[in-house]
Amino acid sequence: MAKKVRLGFVGAGRMGRLHMANIVSSIPEAEIVAVSDPMMDKAGGREWCAARGITNVFTDEANVIDNPDVDAVFVCTTTPLHAPTSLKAVKAGKHTFCEKPISYDVDEIKELMKAIDEAGVKFMPGFNRRFDRNHKAVADAVKSGAIGAPHIVTVSSRDPEPPTIDYVKVSGGLFYDMMIHDFDMVRYVTGSEAVEISAVGACLVNPKLQEQSGIFDVDTAVVTMKMANGCIATINNSRQAVYGYDQRVEAFGSKGVAQDGNELLNNASVMTVDGCRTERPLWFFLERYTQAFIDEARAFVDAVANDTPVPCNVIDGLMPVLMAKAATESCKAGGAFVKVDTV
Amino acid sequence: MAKKVRLGFVGAGRMGRLHMANIVSSIPEAEIVAVSDPMMDKAGGREWCAARGITNVFTDEANVIDNPDVDAVFVCTTTPLHAPTSLKAVKAGKHTFCEKPISYDVDEIKELMKAIDEAGVKFMPGFNRRFDRNHKAVADAVKSGAIGAPHIVTVSSRDPEPPTIDYVKVSGGLFYDMMIHDFDMVRYVTGSEAVEISAVGACLVNPKLQEQSGIFDVDTAVVTMKMANGCIATINNSRQAVYGYDQRVEAFGSKGVAQDGNELLNNASVMTVDGCRTERPLWFFLERYTQAFIDEARAFVDAVANDTPVPCNVIDGLMPVLMAKAATESCKAGGAFVKVDTV
Amino acid sequence: MAKKVRLGFVGAGRMGRLHMANIVSSIPEAEIVAVSDPMMDKAGGREWCAARGITNVFTDEANVIDNPDVDAVFVCTTTPLHAPTSLKAVKAGKHTFCEKPISYDVDEIKELMKAIDEAGVKFMPGFNRRFDRNHKAVADAVKSGAIGAPHIVTVSSRDPEPPTIDYVKVSGGLFYDMMIHDFDMVRYVTGSEAVEISAVGACLVNPKLQEQSGIFDVDTAVVTMKMANGCIATINNSRQAVYGYDQRVEAFGSKGVAQDGNELLNNASVMTVDGCRTERPLWFFLERYTQAFIDEARAFVDAVANDTPVPCNVIDGLMPVLMAKAATESCKAGGAFVKVDTV
Amino acid sequence: MAKKVRLGFVGAGRMGRLHMANIVSSIPEAEIVAVSDPMMDKAGGREWCAARGITNVFTDEANVIDNPDVDAVFVCTTTPLHAPTSLKAVKAGKHTFCEKPISYDVDEIKELMKAIDEAGVKFMPGFNRRFDRNHKAVADAVKSGAIGAPHIVTVSSRDPEPPTIDYVKVSGGLFYDMMIHDFDMVRYVTGSEAVEISAVGACLVNPKLQEQSGIFDVDTAVVTMKMANGCIATINNSRQAVYGYDQRVEAFGSKGVAQDGNELLNNASVMTVDGCRTERPLWFFLERYTQAFIDEARAFVDAVANDTPVPCNVIDGLMPVLMAKAATESCKAGGAFVKVDTV
Repeated sequence: MAKKVRLGFVGAGRMGRLHMANIVSSIPEAEIVAVSDPMMDKAGGREWCAARGITNVFTDEANVIDNPDVDAVFVCTTTPLHAPTSLKAVKAGKHTFCEKPISYDVDEIKELMKAIDEAGVKFMPGFNRRFDRNHKAVADAVKSGAIGAPHIVTVSSRDPEPPTIDYVKVSGGLFYDMMIHDFDMVRYVTGSEAVEISAVGACLVNPKLQEQSGIFDVDTAVVTMKMANGCIATINNSRQAVYGYDQRVEAFGSKGVAQDGNELLNNASVMTVDGCRTERPLWFFLERYTQAFIDEARAFVDAVANDTPVPCNVIDGLMPVLMAKAATESCKAGGAFVKVDTV
Repeated sequence: MAKKVRLGFVGAGRMGRLHMANIVSSIPEAEIVAVSDPMMDKAGGREWCAARGITNVFTDEANVIDNPDVDAVFVCTTTPLHAPTSLKAVKAGKHTFCEKPISYDVDEIKELMKAIDEAGVKFMPGFNRRFDRNHKAVADAVKSGAIGAPHIVTVSSRDPEPPTIDYVKVSGGLFYDMMIHDFDMVRYVTGSEAVEISAVGACLVNPKLQEQSGIFDVDTAVVTMKMANGCIATINNSRQAVYGYDQRVEAFGSKGVAQDGNELLNNASVMTVDGCRTERPLWFFLERYTQAFIDEARAFVDAVANDTPVPCNVIDGLMPVLMAKAATESCKAGGAFVKVDTV
Repeated sequence: MAKKVRLGFVGAGRMGRLHMANIVSSIPEAEIVAVSDPMMDKAGGREWCAARGITNVFTDEANVIDNPDVDAVFVCTTTPLHAPTSLKAVKAGKHTFCEKPISYDVDEIKELMKAIDEAGVKFMPGFNRRFDRNHKAVADAVKSGAIGAPHIVTVSSRDPEPPTIDYVKVSGGLFYDMMIHDFDMVRYVTGSEAVEISAVGACLVNPKLQEQSGIFDVDTAVVTMKMANGCIATINNSRQAVYGYDQRVEAFGSKGVAQDGNELLNNASVMTVDGCRTERPLWFFLERYTQAFIDEARAFVDAVANDTPVPCNVIDGLMPVLMAKAATESCKAGGAFVKVDTV
Repeated sequence: MAKKVRLGFVGAGRMGRLHMANIVSSIPEAEIVAVSDPMMDKAGGREWCAARGITNVFTDEANVIDNPDVDAVFVCTTTPLHAPTSLKAVKAGKHTFCEKPISYDVDEIKELMKAIDEAGVKFMPGFNRRFDRNHKAVADAVKSGAIGAPHIVTVSSRDPEPPTIDYVKVSGGLFYDMMIHDFDMVRYVTGSEAVEISAVGACLVNPKLQEQSGIFDVDTAVVTMKMANGCIATINNSRQAVYGYDQRVEAFGSKGVAQDGNELLNNASVMTVDGCRTERPLWFFLERYTQAFIDEARAFVDAVANDTPVPCNVIDGLMPVLMAKAATESCKAGGAFVKVDTV
């Protein structure tokens, strides 16, 4: 049997625990050899880890990052620390998986890019949706040529409920915080870069959103992109689909159309004189992307184990930020097309 | 039994015959008492009519328009004559059904509006898609409040094959000729008017389209509209969906989402080791909207018979023209938002 | 243009009018030259025909059957007269289309078979479901080999509401009156004959059915057939599917499975916090098989016009009667397998 | 926090490991305190357990069954040992979860029933399909009254590939080995007991099945059951659905119909000129019932933790065996209805 990939975790909060549980239960090719979290002793982290056979736990991240037994680091800190922690791990020569978003600061990402280049390590941002079997099948239909050249790509992406106003205040707004996933999806499915972006938005879910949050933000948005390959891509976002997480992708091209649907609570139907009733979508990303998170972590572990390229890299982390920047600018300007910065 | 509505037809070409056949077979509340077509004796029109029990056929439209036995006129002429013929019929005091588009000339429509007002007759343009049972169910879900306030409305509308270049030359371009139906659908479903329109287009189906046609045109387009009620609406069009006529509508709102699908050649599925195969959509509008054309004609006949308002009127004929005008202007300007003229 | 097929109708009730309306509106290859109905002057038949350009109407069937202008006769009389009238038409040398069931009396059908043979005319019983595009696609998947050798065929067939007790009294019971269509479907889809039949039935819709009707009957039944080709076929029937006409077929075989679904009132869905609601099936056979009735009549007209074999023949009319006989016997015996008579 | 339920495992093969992995990753309310397997040192069991933090591993089952630290035992041995091992565990006063089938020997199950009664412990056989979210929704639609009184229940159940001949030899045949799950499903969905059973079977997948296996067996079967509540239930089984695991349930009743579908590899569709292609079902039970196995184990743990009744009990383990016995007898007799033994 091949040697196991030895993983260290920085951050044992919700996302850290999600990845650790997946690795313990489903990824026998890896083992977790060190975990740090400044709150380790306050949030039951030590016990949580012990119950899964993980005993090398610390409060100081240096015990993970500088640990010679660690091959690769999962950065699952709070968002503002994603880039700085990743930078330390990369500079320490560790392969690094970083939860999204890497950063909203383009310069910070560029600094990280340089370090990755110098260290020669693998770096993978956590765009879990690329590992969803449904979205992947749509992207594959484009990649394989099954639908020909893509002409119109549509991403519908709606959260079940809006975040708290406190969260909105530090979120960077819908384009950075929510649509960033969809920008990635557009790049993933079209296989091309956005050249210009037009964004139209409104506060239809919460008309007082801007007033309450104190930032420029919208909760409903439609974005149109002219892609480098000629394809026109659109994204529509809402912060509140009351029926549950609505995540669908459609790629229309010269030879056909590929599309996917939501995963439902169950697929049974009940038909009566009142019509036929089927279930709602799974509630949110933890339910919808359960398997995608496992497959994402496995992809990173595989790339490290076999020294193959990671399926998404630091550029994939940067480009959606540049797209969010252009979209925000366009939305402020009432929808005018704005050029997307190039790297 | 109530007295039958006595109909006269001006034009016995494809659309004229379609409506006449529907009336004979499915609308016993009406009878066809006069038909005119300048080509009546050249295209077998006389025989075609006789086989359906219609014997008062003429080459001169005056025999229909000025016929005292005629209660209402169906204008099924070539497109450039829609408005002039309708004007004559209206001025002769006839209720008038006019095939779409009434005209691409706003002034011509406004002249007609004035005449309708003065004559006090009913006038209904043939927006057949409003009578499609699937699209109607989506519109009804908005109207009834089932999905709450509409936030995002999406119309996907793709023809199976592009028209000939000769047709394109006189068509007015995609926004006037094809998307005009979808502009109507947006108004129908949202129950609101477009305030500003952004249009992005490209020649992806036929890169030489502009060169060959000599007009400004595109074959692939995405349009975004800011509606008066706050809703954001989008339309995507392609002149060529190789798999068949693709006509779908989705309305997302504060309380839910309504959407419809295509009608397929049949609904059987065959599953083998190669996956599951189901059929393509019906090929084009004649197949897809067979029943809608019947229901449309019945709605007009009913309005005349019972002296109730027509379900779509001359304003509904005008507004999509104003939207097409704004969209064309925006597309030429690279997608900038353009205000839609008001009546 | 080829000469039109000249049709005569015996019977201008519901089914006669249905076929006549379809022929006038959709089958230009045929013309109706004579119609008889003993009730012609009492049920507005004369006016109904006149409105469709049909003027040779009579009360005496001899005017149709012995009419030298008639190429083919549609027998649309009351059920007990189907066989006798068909026999007269066949003996008069007319191609004959006979509404189903031909008869419940095997000897009567055999007499008719002999006459058809002697007269050398075409005879087609009206098994409209064979012309339904969905069921046809399932049958075609078997015929083409797409699903390999058929192993298990399932027909679900449920009416929206039970017939009146008066109707039940003369109906011959569920196996003759309702399941007879499904026996035909089993033969059509499997391409094989039933060798033995087991029938289980119950009065679950109306527990007093037998008492009220005075005949042996059930309103819920499950039948299993051992087919000559080894396939096992099952039919389930209910007289009351409160949600509407439920007609589905599945063919499972060595290489796959083919199945069809119901046609719905419309295909829109509305999703809210309460789940997703879609529509019910079309209410009954007139709605569901609208197009099938047209295609059925066209198939008969085509066979006559081109002197090709009819797609279903008198044997296809006989076999389901033999199957109903075996099923009734089995049901009375509590479900024992009963051999099906051969011709 | 409540005290954890302390589990012991007898058997660390495929099913034992499946349950242990699920408990470690997804059921924090339980902990595994002892595991035995006679092959523990030969099949890497010790290492497999250690990687999941389980260290008390043994080759002798007495270390589990007689272990005072163990609250409840999972019996995951080979099939012939299910009943004897369960009997020991029950007699040792342990709550017991037993993989299905408990036994094909009715007397052995009755002896176990007596022991359970005397010991006053909980006993739950592993009918995992009851915990599938789709099947459960169908059963719930019956239980809640949503579809009224059940009239016709249909279970389609087809494996992707036949077992080896060696397996067939000791399997007891299709009715015991495969349809036993479907007998349970019929009881679960109808909420009633089978009174009489008719079984028709054939060797359509492997015509030499009987000759090769030396036992009476079939690979394709259709079974009809008269249930105590009047409902008619049918099951169809095939040992080989080449497209994958096909597991669907339909319950038709006085107020409507409930049905479920398969889970597919993904839900994307690709439509081209060749039609629309969607994916096949998940391959087999491990893929299809992944979550059901977790929910099943959790249900047992919950019942132990809260001292509530188990959702399925030893009677539920016995009845399908009696049904398989009747079905086998009927099939041998060519499909005659056979009474099902009562407890």
